[in-house]
Amino acid sequence: MNYKMIGYVISRILWTEGILLLLPLLVSALYREPLTPFLLPMLALGLTGLVLCRKPKQTSLYARDGFAVVALAWVGMSLFGALPFVISGDIPNFIDAFFETVSGFTTTGATILTAVEPLGKGILFWRSFTHWVGGMGVLVFVMAVLPMTDGHGMHLLRAEMPGPSVGKLVSRMSDTAKILYGIYLAMTVIEIILLLLGGMPLFDSCIHSFGSAGTGGFSNRDLSVGAYDNVYFDIVIGVFMLLFGVNFNLYYFLLIRRFREVFRSEELRAYLLIVTGAVLAIALDIWHMYGSFAESLRYSFFQVASIITTTGYATADFNLWPSFSKGILVVIMFIGACAGSTGGGIKVARIVMLVKSSWNDMRKMLHPNAITTTRFEGKPMTDQNIRGVHVFLSVYLLVFTVSFLILSLEQFDLVTTFTALTACINNIGPGLEMVGPTGNFSQFSWTSKLLLSFDMLVGRLEIFPMLLLFAPSIWKRGRIIRRI
Amino acid sequence: MNYKMIGYVISRILWTEGILLLLPLLVSALYREPLTPFLLPMLALGLTGLVLCRKPKQTSLYARDGFAVVALAWVGMSLFGALPFVISGDIPNFIDAFFETVSGFTTTGATILTAVEPLGKGILFWRSFTHWVGGMGVLVFVMAVLPMTDGHGMHLLRAEMPGPSVGKLVSRMSDTAKILYGIYLAMTVIEIILLLLGGMPLFDSCIHSFGSAGTGGFSNRDLSVGAYDNVYFDIVIGVFMLLFGVNFNLYYFLLIRRFREVFRSEELRAYLLIVTGAVLAIALDIWHMYGSFAESLRYSFFQVASIITTTGYATADFNLWPSFSKGILVVIMFIGACAGSTGGGIKVARIVMLVKSSWNDMRKMLHPNAITTTRFEGKPMTDQNIRGVHVFLSVYLLVFTVSFLILSLEQFDLVTTFTALTACINNIGPGLEMVGPTGNFSQFSWTSKLLLSFDMLVGRLEIFPMLLLFAPSIWKRGRIIRRI
Repeated sequence: MNYKMIGYVISRILWTEGILLLLPLLVSALYREPLTPFLLPMLALGLTGLVLCRKPKQTSLYARDGFAVVALAWVGMSLFGALPFVISGDIPNFIDAFFETVSGFTTTGATILTAVEPLGKGILFWRSFTHWVGGMGVLVFVMAVLPMTDGHGMHLLRAEMPGPSVGKLVSRMSDTAKILYGIYLAMTVIEIILLLLGGMPLFDSCIHSFGSAGTGGFSNRDLSVGAYDNVYFDIVIGVFMLLFGVNFNLYYFLLIRRFREVFRSEELRAYLLIVTGAVLAIALDIWHMYGSFAESLRYSFFQVASIITTTGYATADFNLWPSFSKGILVVIMFIGACAGSTGGGIKVARIVMLVKSSWNDMRKMLHPNAITTTRFEGKPMTDQNIRGVHVFLSVYLLVFTVSFLILSLEQFDLVTTFTALTACINNIGPGLEMVGPTGNFSQFSWTSKLLLSFDMLVGRLEIFPMLLLFAPSIWKRGRIIRRI
Repeated sequence: MNYKMIGYVISRILWTEGILLLLPLLVSALYREPLTPFLLPMLALGLTGLVLCRKPKQTSLYARDGFAVVALAWVGMSLFGALPFVISGDIPNFIDAFFETVSGFTTTGATILTAVEPLGKGILFWRSFTHWVGGMGVLVFVMAVLPMTDGHGMHLLRAEMPGPSVGKLVSRMSDTAKILYGIYLAMTVIEIILLLLGGMPLFDSCIHSFGSAGTGGFSNRDLSVGAYDNVYFDIVIGVFMLLFGVNFNLYYFLLIRRFREVFRSEELRAYLLIVTGAVLAIALDIWHMYGSFAESLRYSFFQVASIITTTGYATADFNLWPSFSKGILVVIMFIGACAGSTGGGIKVARIVMLVKSSWNDMRKMLHPNAITTTRFEGKPMTDQNIRGVHVFLSVYLLVFTVSFLILSLEQFDLVTTFTALTACINNIGPGLEMVGPTGNFSQFSWTSKLLLSFDMLVGRLEIFPMLLLFAPSIWKRGRIIRRI
């Protein structure tokens, strides 16, 4: 492993985090709150970056270095990002603060706080801003600002970006990163403006736009978006959550007027189909609870948009909904948003690929001599593509099963245990029962909080970077080609 | 499709079922119960067989014919097998009787009966005897007795036998079938004798031996094996359930003194490791409920043996156990027994292959240029083997998810819905909450009972035969080679 280069990249990331802390610092200053919760971490980030910052001669990064950088960067950022919560005294316990920060950066939105309204404005801002930063990815940001690797940076992007396959939009990677962040920023600003126009205060508009842009779900209100009980806000936030759950490449295609690629996208069509189906099925199921179909459609739409994009905002306590509706929500928790979006979960693209390749394999059973190929997004799926999706699914299930067994040691009821894990590993936030929309994660032990933090990172970084940290061979120096 | 040949094979299977009904008829005669519940179905089977029995000139069966025969044979057997329950008046509703018979043949053991003790002896015997017949497979039986296909019968065995790969033990398939049934019969007789020696009545010994041999789980006592509260019975039945969960090929190897193959079997070692781990973990978790560790070990051992082999007998109401123990039970419900045994579930062999190949794929991520191969049971796993396991898992999850959504329309609690489906698709029997060891499936609607019957067949026949019945191309005449 190229330790020096990894240190160099991480120093850039930590400094970036230090600079990003200027924003909550400014908010704190505006609201005349103490500034030390942000100044001290900035100092710590600056100094740690200095220790690591020497640029090595050999700047190439191999695949395993990419995994290591991404995993270490996210853990490091979360460790430092937790400091403001601890120093401000809002979350005095460091493990709780670490859980909250991991939940922020991974855009999960699971909280250990029983009430958020008493928190300082600066802290609330930082808490939600982590969603915005984590949504598109920190490495993507660093690359957009500081191009530094000579061509091998694709490994980094691949390890950080959600979805089965990541391509460059344009030939230079730093330009790809800039385009993605440009679209992201523009859409966030539009959402802030739309919420302002509806009468939401500026601070709240920022918080909820960060939360929906990153598909995170932290709110500054204890009742989440439900606190406003405003149809306009429900629609704006609902629609924007869905928009941020779409592959960002499609927005780029819209910008360069390649409309055909957008309308032809199989993943987009499957995503919209699942959303529509889920919204209608739930609306019919909860009709009797809300009097009118329009009203039940409103709540169904918002909750489905929030869950499938893995955001986690709530306007209704869906834990009280009938089992069929809860069943649908649990299923879309696993499906998740589109690849290349800020959302989590298994991703619609993978589900479509699984269904299509399984269908093809079953045809082959009936007609063993038939030559068949399956296409996805217009291209034939190679055996390697399909293997990748299968391996993802298998490892995902293995991590899920082991985590489930460890978590059930808490002896909470099975639905709480299962959905707490589901909500964390898919980066959603709320689950059902104790961790439902009105609940929180405060009752879990510190070991479970660490386990769930690990699972949130596993989910956000698409499993492998975090798991491979445990492979002894990732830590060996130099490049190793082994024949086993 | 070779309709005539399929009809011919099915006629043999129906006649075999008719002959098998002689046994419960005899039991009814001994207990001076009415004989019509068995005589009428025997007549119906005989006549239906006559309609189908013409042997065609062309006797070859292709892969898709194999799937169709197996699926249709199992559905047909269950339709006729349900008649005794209806005619005797013990289960007047035909769909209930069909559910009970499918549950019997698929060795699930899920029941719609709220009490079994009032049933006639002949009916109770038939109910449990379906486990014994279904455990090893009806086609295997028919092939052992009436060799009839010219070399293409392997498709049938493959479609009916559990596990990722089915090999012939000896060159002639009918001999393989005879060896398997010989071992099966001998082990069942030994279990009956051991239970008799412990003082269990002959009738009860037969019932519980059929139930454990087929890893089914129907009992003639409302409290299942727990009704006897006898440590000796717990140990005998517990050990035999575990023995019937082992790949039968290993017993053949023992007979021909190839001990090395047995001790080297990776699947066997993994199976014993999982059983030991689960027994100890649960025993520690429920210690406080049973006073002494020996006592908690006794209940833990029996329940783990019963669940991992997918039998479903109970000596304790594990629905009242702590969440950790319930979590372990739910996980081993999915793992299931060994390939080539009478047990259900995903199978230990598939789990081992998934873990090993995932591990290998992750190594490849770190070292993209390394050439690696993974071995299972001493042989290198081919990409095709691994693909087969992956496809199985994907389709299994898809069927599970769709069934879960439909079943949740019942609006029962999520744990009931989830574990009812888990218990049916993995051929276990009891789940948790409403369908726990003291519950039953009587409260489900007739549509859910049909869905769960389908899922039980899906689980027993390893998914594909049942699903492929819905593929239009399976119904086309002749052999089709299509290029798509």
